Amino acid sequence: MLEKLREEVYRANMELPERGLVVYTWGNVSGIDRESGLVVIKPSGVEYDELKPSNLVIVDLNNNIVEGDMNPSSDTKTHVELYKSFPAVGGIVHTHSAHAVGWAQAGRDIPSYGTTHADYFYGPVPCTRNLTSQEVESDYELNTGKVIVETFNARKLDPIAVPGVICRSHGPFTWGKNAAQAVYHAVVLEEVAKMAMFTATIDPMTPPAPQYIFDKHYLRKHGANAYYGQKN
Amino acid sequence: MLEKLREEVYRANMELPERGLVVYTWGNVSGIDRESGLVVIKPSGVEYDELKPSNLVIVDLNNNIVEGDMNPSSDTKTHVELYKSFPAVGGIVHTHSAHAVGWAQAGRDIPSYGTTHADYFYGPVPCTRNLTSQEVESDYELNTGKVIVETFNARKLDPIAVPGVICRSHGPFTWGKNAAQAVYHAVVLEEVAKMAMFTATIDPMTPPAPQYIFDKHYLRKHGANAYYGQKN
Amino acid sequence: MLEKLREEVYRANMELPERGLVVYTWGNVSGIDRESGLVVIKPSGVEYDELKPSNLVIVDLNNNIVEGDMNPSSDTKTHVELYKSFPAVGGIVHTHSAHAVGWAQAGRDIPSYGTTHADYFYGPVPCTRNLTSQEVESDYELNTGKVIVETFNARKLDPIAVPGVICRSHGPFTWGKNAAQAVYHAVVLEEVAKMAMFTATIDPMTPPAPQYIFDKHYLRKHGANAYYGQKN
Amino acid sequence: MLEKLREEVYRANMELPERGLVVYTWGNVSGIDRESGLVVIKPSGVEYDELKPSNLVIVDLNNNIVEGDMNPSSDTKTHVELYKSFPAVGGIVHTHSAHAVGWAQAGRDIPSYGTTHADYFYGPVPCTRNLTSQEVESDYELNTGKVIVETFNARKLDPIAVPGVICRSHGPFTWGKNAAQAVYHAVVLEEVAKMAMFTATIDPMTPPAPQYIFDKHYLRKHGANAYYGQKN
Repeated sequence: MLEKLREEVYRANMELPERGLVVYTWGNVSGIDRESGLVVIKPSGVEYDELKPSNLVIVDLNNNIVEGDMNPSSDTKTHVELYKSFPAVGGIVHTHSAHAVGWAQAGRDIPSYGTTHADYFYGPVPCTRNLTSQEVESDYELNTGKVIVETFNARKLDPIAVPGVICRSHGPFTWGKNAAQAVYHAVVLEEVAKMAMFTATIDPMTPPAPQYIFDKHYLRKHGANAYYGQKN
Repeated sequence: MLEKLREEVYRANMELPERGLVVYTWGNVSGIDRESGLVVIKPSGVEYDELKPSNLVIVDLNNNIVEGDMNPSSDTKTHVELYKSFPAVGGIVHTHSAHAVGWAQAGRDIPSYGTTHADYFYGPVPCTRNLTSQEVESDYELNTGKVIVETFNARKLDPIAVPGVICRSHGPFTWGKNAAQAVYHAVVLEEVAKMAMFTATIDPMTPPAPQYIFDKHYLRKHGANAYYGQKN
Repeated sequence: MLEKLREEVYRANMELPERGLVVYTWGNVSGIDRESGLVVIKPSGVEYDELKPSNLVIVDLNNNIVEGDMNPSSDTKTHVELYKSFPAVGGIVHTHSAHAVGWAQAGRDIPSYGTTHADYFYGPVPCTRNLTSQEVESDYELNTGKVIVETFNARKLDPIAVPGVICRSHGPFTWGKNAAQAVYHAVVLEEVAKMAMFTATIDPMTPPAPQYIFDKHYLRKHGANAYYGQKN
Repeated sequence: MLEKLREEVYRANMELPERGLVVYTWGNVSGIDRESGLVVIKPSGVEYDELKPSNLVIVDLNNNIVEGDMNPSSDTKTHVELYKSFPAVGGIVHTHSAHAVGWAQAGRDIPSYGTTHADYFYGPVPCTRNLTSQEVESDYELNTGKVIVETFNARKLDPIAVPGVICRSHGPFTWGKNAAQAVYHAVVLEEVAKMAMFTATIDPMTPPAPQYIFDKHYLRKHGANAYYGQKN
């Protein structure tokens, strides 16, 4: 069932340790088949060097296990909530990559300091508010997803133009059209978080880059008249 | 004698350089057999690429050598003191991993900034006081252990819920139910120390994460109703 | 056509990931044949592990494609503008190496703190101004080149004595007598940017090194009476 | 001639890139045969991956080349001056390792913050003054050596108890009883410089560790009653 997606999500999961984004089991990738509404996700707490494609778990959009012998990632409800709220998203990644976590723990958006950032994130990477005590106690992982969606709605952000978030006191989630692109955005987010920390170290009062530079860089890669890369 | 434990402690020692936690001989791992009260520990000053299982030294809880041709780690009395005071501990690690040392030298607890920390350490990682001149001169390594125990007693900390400490002006000790888990906690402590330094760089006034987030994250992994990972 | 230069530029491009200077496709190298006025440059958006010498694109100094099936780097006009303005330059590199970007985003010259810097850059590495909205919207990549040249002219800098620049809100360009030397300077610039950040972290008020130390170090390697290295 | 020393110095040179201490040719190691007063040193500007034992140059204590077809390191006069002033030294290393350079550029001693430092350096790692214009212009490399010696004399430091220095606006020199130990100290100095930068980042007002901790740690490894490591 969903063998191609399973293989894609497996490969995307394995890319996390290869890219240096995870320590031990601190991360997970999922992908969705929009037609059936089924999500393939990493099992909870399994070491990457022991992970096999057959270990991946399939859940539906009500968080019911449809296939698989293992427990799905403890973050499954967060992934599912994002798939339900962001219909253009096909893959989601969660990591504890260190520089992104640094910003998340400080509770600050990653500032839009330059073109590396602008090439992928059309504006600051937003940091959510902390969950309330009640939100944590009632349904933590579901509410993590809800607070991400709340952040995007409140700021009128397009999740395709800003394909990631940092959750306050926690860490980053990124997404994309599929699992591979979600991992790509996880790598970019960590790199951009590192560069932003360097800039804040050199001069904590650094203003964001001018908006028109953001417009240019984002749109030369992603706009209707994009001219970066090769036409296929 | 204690061949299985010897092998476990040997492998745990070798994991320190593999995980990038030690330079030269700056670290050591021990494990205890609670039935016999015997501790297997790295010999002092031996390079990791020359270490063999047969080099490990066995000492009793009075610091007498029971088996082995080499001197045990110069930190042996610290390990033994911790085994005597923390009966649930089965393995202990000492390293000079750089970020943990950074906090230890600054004499500051590693703040409980986020969930990466909360998943393993239920509260700040405590920093001990400096030893007094007399404590250093009379029995330095023994007193290092005593000051760690004093810190846990004074703050009413459970060494299983907070499986590590940083010794002021020195560096980290971590522990676990066995040698492998103690190394796991040494890796986590260094990663958490790094993330905390990043957060303090971005905003030195960052408050700790709310206590209820700590409760949730620690308990979803370690509480009676833990649901992280797979049930065995 | 230009097979030797093509091979040189290919090798110089491949050195960027080998030296850890690029993530994904975030960098490019070009080289010029001064006799024909033709520039060999990396194609746009091609992953380094898929790049072949035959993919490189040849353009003339009017930015017309002379040979090649792919689009040239989106930064081609910047490269060409530099070749036209800096006649002694034979190779150019653009990267988003993290520490150099850190300074570029902060909008600050990389200070001339020491001899590592002085061995290759005879004075601070200049940071350009931001492009204006009009410059970005009319012909962004061309104007990036023009602002670099403006910076060197306004400060009366010799591009051979200062073989690199950081573009505000963006990142570094370096150059040299050929593509290989341009990459060498990209590595040095990143290393010098890192050391300067460390120094600014330790003491933000650090003054530059005395000018006579700069004179000595630069000239013992590059002056008429240079005595560093071997005479050939 | 001096084949054993040549081999030792060659191996010590090759250890610099293996330990990540040098970029390109930014470092050199020498060793002395005290009986003959001859110094074996790396040739100037030769890449490490092209270096062969036969390339090493032998000079006497008047800086005359005694054997070798290549120019000796441009820093040769600094090495020779140190051998003449520090009779217990058998090997010397110069690098531009990044954290040590960070402190050297800031013109500040590396503070004696903890036991990692105390295990090898009995007190702060001193930073020299800048050379004067006249010292730079007359005989730069010789005067670099003289200022190091001046620093040790003025502060009454024993070069065996403090086996390294950072030269203001430049970088570190370390030494030891032979070339291998000098490299060992270069690795330690870089690690200690990194840890000290982390500590200064966490709290710039951190005081040094108490002197009695320094006494203990240094002397348990190096004193008459040292008990670290194995007795041979």
